[in-house]
Amino acid sequence: MNDKNQEVKDLTFINDIKTMAVIGTTQKREFFFLRSHQENFKGNIYAINPRLKQIPEFDNGTEGKIFPTLTDVPEDIDYAYITVPPTQILEVMSDCVKKGVKLASIFTAEFSDSGTQEGIELENKLLEKSRGKVRILGPNGMGLFYPKLGIAWRYKFPTFPGNIAFISQSGGISNIVIYSSEDLGIAFSKVFSFGNGADIDFVDLLNFLVHDDETEIITCYLEGIKLSRGGALKKILSINKKPFIIVKGGRTESGSKAAQTHTAAITGSEKVWDALFSQYNVIRVDTIERMLHTAMLVDFYGPFKVKNVALFSISGGYGVVLTDLLEKHGIKVPRFSPEIQKRLDEKFFTLGTSSKNPLDVSTQVFNTESMKAIMDIALSDENIDALIMDLPSWYLNQNYHIRKNSEFEKGILEAFRFLKKRDNPILVIIQAANCPEDRSRAVKFLTENKIPVFRDPWEFVPLLSKITMYSETLKIKNIE
Amino acid sequence: MNDKNQEVKDLTFINDIKTMAVIGTTQKREFFFLRSHQENFKGNIYAINPRLKQIPEFDNGTEGKIFPTLTDVPEDIDYAYITVPPTQILEVMSDCVKKGVKLASIFTAEFSDSGTQEGIELENKLLEKSRGKVRILGPNGMGLFYPKLGIAWRYKFPTFPGNIAFISQSGGISNIVIYSSEDLGIAFSKVFSFGNGADIDFVDLLNFLVHDDETEIITCYLEGIKLSRGGALKKILSINKKPFIIVKGGRTESGSKAAQTHTAAITGSEKVWDALFSQYNVIRVDTIERMLHTAMLVDFYGPFKVKNVALFSISGGYGVVLTDLLEKHGIKVPRFSPEIQKRLDEKFFTLGTSSKNPLDVSTQVFNTESMKAIMDIALSDENIDALIMDLPSWYLNQNYHIRKNSEFEKGILEAFRFLKKRDNPILVIIQAANCPEDRSRAVKFLTENKIPVFRDPWEFVPLLSKITMYSETLKIKNIE
Repeated sequence: MNDKNQEVKDLTFINDIKTMAVIGTTQKREFFFLRSHQENFKGNIYAINPRLKQIPEFDNGTEGKIFPTLTDVPEDIDYAYITVPPTQILEVMSDCVKKGVKLASIFTAEFSDSGTQEGIELENKLLEKSRGKVRILGPNGMGLFYPKLGIAWRYKFPTFPGNIAFISQSGGISNIVIYSSEDLGIAFSKVFSFGNGADIDFVDLLNFLVHDDETEIITCYLEGIKLSRGGALKKILSINKKPFIIVKGGRTESGSKAAQTHTAAITGSEKVWDALFSQYNVIRVDTIERMLHTAMLVDFYGPFKVKNVALFSISGGYGVVLTDLLEKHGIKVPRFSPEIQKRLDEKFFTLGTSSKNPLDVSTQVFNTESMKAIMDIALSDENIDALIMDLPSWYLNQNYHIRKNSEFEKGILEAFRFLKKRDNPILVIIQAANCPEDRSRAVKFLTENKIPVFRDPWEFVPLLSKITMYSETLKIKNIE
Repeated sequence: MNDKNQEVKDLTFINDIKTMAVIGTTQKREFFFLRSHQENFKGNIYAINPRLKQIPEFDNGTEGKIFPTLTDVPEDIDYAYITVPPTQILEVMSDCVKKGVKLASIFTAEFSDSGTQEGIELENKLLEKSRGKVRILGPNGMGLFYPKLGIAWRYKFPTFPGNIAFISQSGGISNIVIYSSEDLGIAFSKVFSFGNGADIDFVDLLNFLVHDDETEIITCYLEGIKLSRGGALKKILSINKKPFIIVKGGRTESGSKAAQTHTAAITGSEKVWDALFSQYNVIRVDTIERMLHTAMLVDFYGPFKVKNVALFSISGGYGVVLTDLLEKHGIKVPRFSPEIQKRLDEKFFTLGTSSKNPLDVSTQVFNTESMKAIMDIALSDENIDALIMDLPSWYLNQNYHIRKNSEFEKGILEAFRFLKKRDNPILVIIQAANCPEDRSRAVKFLTENKIPVFRDPWEFVPLLSKITMYSETLKIKNIE
């Protein structure tokens, strides 16, 4: 028993999925999961329903191949997506075993998640039936999103594969995370919504991703794990070399109760989790939004240390407020070295500016060539780790300016791109004051160039210290 | 001397400004401040420049009336907006005195803000010259934004007057705040960017707004005040009955130094400020974005207490995360009373939902009539103060749904509007995952109906406890 708890399941076959079947797709649901998977899946896909003779052709021209049972399909099936009612689940699993299915994703709920004895027993029978031959994701999970192979449980998921993995105990959060990624300029290698984790659990998935060549950053929403899996988890965490960013749900009393209702998870003692995360240098954040932003920052710049920043503001006051917020989070806005300060002073030619850190660039911002030079000089100060600049949204809309400067936007964005040649993180705040379309255009350019953009300093300032702490611990661990 | 420091200046004449002049407007700046004021000013407006004979007609057909000096204008002038170089300022001020100008806003900088002896002396001479007859805003400030009278120092400022005032020691922040207001569904009675505050200072403005019938909520960005004005400030704070929300810049060492560079302000001891804010029930927040969101919440719902919320989530996991974040900030997501719970249970007919607080509404959300009823029942629990619901952005775009439901958006938004009949705050999170245009449309509807919308729980959760504390203290003070 103990040995089994130490085991992690081999999931590497996932990288080779070539065929799939959607079992239980119905007219009533308008073939939702079939249609979703049909949108981009690169291999052959089959619909399974004994009560349907044919299925309308899909929008993209994919033929609707339908069979009464899985065993009727004239081809091997690697991946089965199962949505049949609980009453049919055991029979379907028998077919999966017969057919040699490698991975079954079970969307159907009302197993152990229901909290009833009946549900728990059904889940146990399901596991018996699969006989360890068919690996199961779920039940009560959305399954697998794997853009490289075109596997997606929902319409209009991004199609571009990335380097970030997400493991989630919540299907709804998975959807939010996946749909949020494109605008943030990040993309996923694989996302697992593992639901009850009856067979493949969080520990198995983490182990798989720690070794997965397609994954560089691991993110996670977790409510709890079986106590017996603690040892296996520690072992994996101890060998993990990738940034691992987690939102652990149920940290408070009410949150823990809510998690129990949600997935019947025992969230465990907060002290134990905190000690574990601290020991293994796991980056813990408290919201999904912060998890995404942390992943974006680490993706764009790798692990970094930000202790001293050069702060460029359009307005002296906004620079003061940001300086306060940064310092409260352990980040300084120090003076430049005398030599750098001298060079900066020489570059400023506009009244009302201040070349001291935090810099008040005022209307000099419109001279983008000088801005490029000034920012570059500031970053050449060896005491400066990063650059933060705020830019109000209406600066990007010529209708808001009496003196037109149609080259401004291109110039300032190019200046940021130019600075990317340096290793230092560049962080841009474009206040969402107005002009949403102009803002979106600039955000798109910057994120495509892997420059993170925020709308509110609270979105990223607390994350800088977390990433810095992670990177410092990483360095110490590497020396050890 | 002491008596003078206790004095506050009478500024009520501001409500009656009928005529204005822009002094020092130039071709070189493309008549920026003239054009900006011309856009919406409701009275007569004159340009003053001895070197220009005429001025091109403005876009909106306003005639370009120009005179060599202020004294040449054949009408009384209430408000003068001054942008002449420092060398001409004393002469211009003499003209203002002669002309009987009531308020002069001086945009020109390089007075005490420069930190030089020369600048300080010039500012003193300016005050002497004005002889207490012309009240001065600035120098080194943007001046007055007063939408009711169409007074605006910048293009495309909102034209609709509101009930929120903003006093600012930063012009740049004023612009951000004003341009942000429309999207948030709030509007300003008056905004003062008072710069160096040589004559009219923060204390005068606060006093004016505390008594101003057009102002219900006062917001402020302040870096520091003269020590000698502490007594007058306390007196005003002690009689103030309006919510007063402040960002005090320079709370940290670096922030304080930055403030000194910015406006030569002595930011003062943090302990003293904190004690003062606590004694007089001032709501202190740490960023401009939070100030705006706090003002929005208080505007939409008045002072409120939120200790127990009903939390509606599309996803069980998102509800768990929100519950944790709320509890961390002292807000509970409690069980409903047995009777309310029973009524809620009867209303749920969709598998995979949970009617326990935090509620996991899952796909039941698409039945908006039932959602309306469920949310109304939840709010009828006497232990529940407020309702929070999250709604991912793609729920509002039919292209993301296989089963089309074109009535959904209208239905769910109407449900929120229906709940406004109750006193309880309703707070909506529409995650900005994708579909920005659909999101904007819904945000517009909700903010027009005074229902606040956020994109990230960190934007508002910490503010709820601040407003609750304010409202509780208010109640205690009222009893006393």
